[in-house]
Amino acid sequence: MSSTAVTIFFDVNETLSDLSPVADAFDKIGAGREVASAWFASVLRDGFALTATNGTAHFLDIAQTNARDTLRGRSLTASLDESVDAILAAFSSMPLHDDVAPGIRSLHAAGHRLFTLSNGPTTTAERLFATAELSGLLTGMLSVEGHTPWKPGRTAYLDAVERTNTGGIAYLVAVHPWDIHGATEAGLSTIWVNRAAAAYPEHFHPPTFSVTSIGAIDSQLVQRH
Amino acid sequence: MSSTAVTIFFDVNETLSDLSPVADAFDKIGAGREVASAWFASVLRDGFALTATNGTAHFLDIAQTNARDTLRGRSLTASLDESVDAILAAFSSMPLHDDVAPGIRSLHAAGHRLFTLSNGPTTTAERLFATAELSGLLTGMLSVEGHTPWKPGRTAYLDAVERTNTGGIAYLVAVHPWDIHGATEAGLSTIWVNRAAAAYPEHFHPPTFSVTSIGAIDSQLVQRH
Repeated sequence: MSSTAVTIFFDVNETLSDLSPVADAFDKIGAGREVASAWFASVLRDGFALTATNGTAHFLDIAQTNARDTLRGRSLTASLDESVDAILAAFSSMPLHDDVAPGIRSLHAAGHRLFTLSNGPTTTAERLFATAELSGLLTGMLSVEGHTPWKPGRTAYLDAVERTNTGGIAYLVAVHPWDIHGATEAGLSTIWVNRAAAAYPEHFHPPTFSVTSIGAIDSQLVQRH
Repeated sequence: MSSTAVTIFFDVNETLSDLSPVADAFDKIGAGREVASAWFASVLRDGFALTATNGTAHFLDIAQTNARDTLRGRSLTASLDESVDAILAAFSSMPLHDDVAPGIRSLHAAGHRLFTLSNGPTTTAERLFATAELSGLLTGMLSVEGHTPWKPGRTAYLDAVERTNTGGIAYLVAVHPWDIHGATEAGLSTIWVNRAAAAYPEHFHPPTFSVTSIGAIDSQLVQRH
């Protein structure tokens, strides 16, 4: 059984990559694992604030500035500079979640067009897929940088559709409900990856469908198209 | 020495109110104080995501949903429902920072028009000022709810200026750099309250001037107007 080929845009940070090494890094420098969530939420908060004012946001700049702000004044096992560097280094060396490689392989085998679409630089996705020896399975890797404000602003998705000459059905795959919301606003279909049995927040548009792993997407598409 | 009367809009949460009882509440239910920052950043993150897509966001709804999401799966000293209620109760009973009352009194005595302008409901500011017996010193208390998307969207500030018939100089006072950024985009002057000797992030427009307490604003205005 084969499904109609569609275009799929994958969010990158946390959707494909596993953020736990960043939590490990916060723990190792003495700040504690919990601080990783506060830091990552603050990076998105500030990027979205700039998006809401049609401003330009550079993911890694905000990540660095906010790591410094989060760590300042804490009792750390290294200097503030070294600690910030350790967080950024961990962020730049995250692995793919275990379910990503089998999922990407089956979606590629089914003939779907696969892209990444990140608020961060394309270098992150390039490294992730090169390390996992999966680069050849992607049609392309996209960042909003240099093109539009961040997701979840509508233009980020519309520009990605245009840049990839997507004429048919397009899906956005993400773990973040705010990404599902923005893609829905832009007219895309959406797939929410819910690895942790979370509840979907009522304040955002719901996804077209949900999965518990990237590997479960292909069979869902077969049923639907 | 008297200064020219200006209009001043005060952000509410964290700028006027002290969030530490919320951190105490997270600690008391067994989640730990650090989780308070992650939770509050996630509330702003989601509200800004809705703002970036011109959507409507209700502060207390997002606060409740995200408290539940943040606490789910943790080892807590009470049920999930009771824990979420405890966080919201703490959020609804925050006191003013110690420097607010003397600052508000001196600015009122100098003849300035004083408003609150919050992404949350006006009831929060009303309670804060009633408890401190300062309500009579404010010209009005404003929320974006029912009017515009959240700050830092430009329309939130422009609508506040219009609703208060502000013709002359208008300042936005906030601890949050994203608020300073949005107000600047809307053409207001800005005052950054930096109680914790933080560094101002380069990714946002800088404030017109900074103070370490609300009490220090009046003398700065005397010098400038």
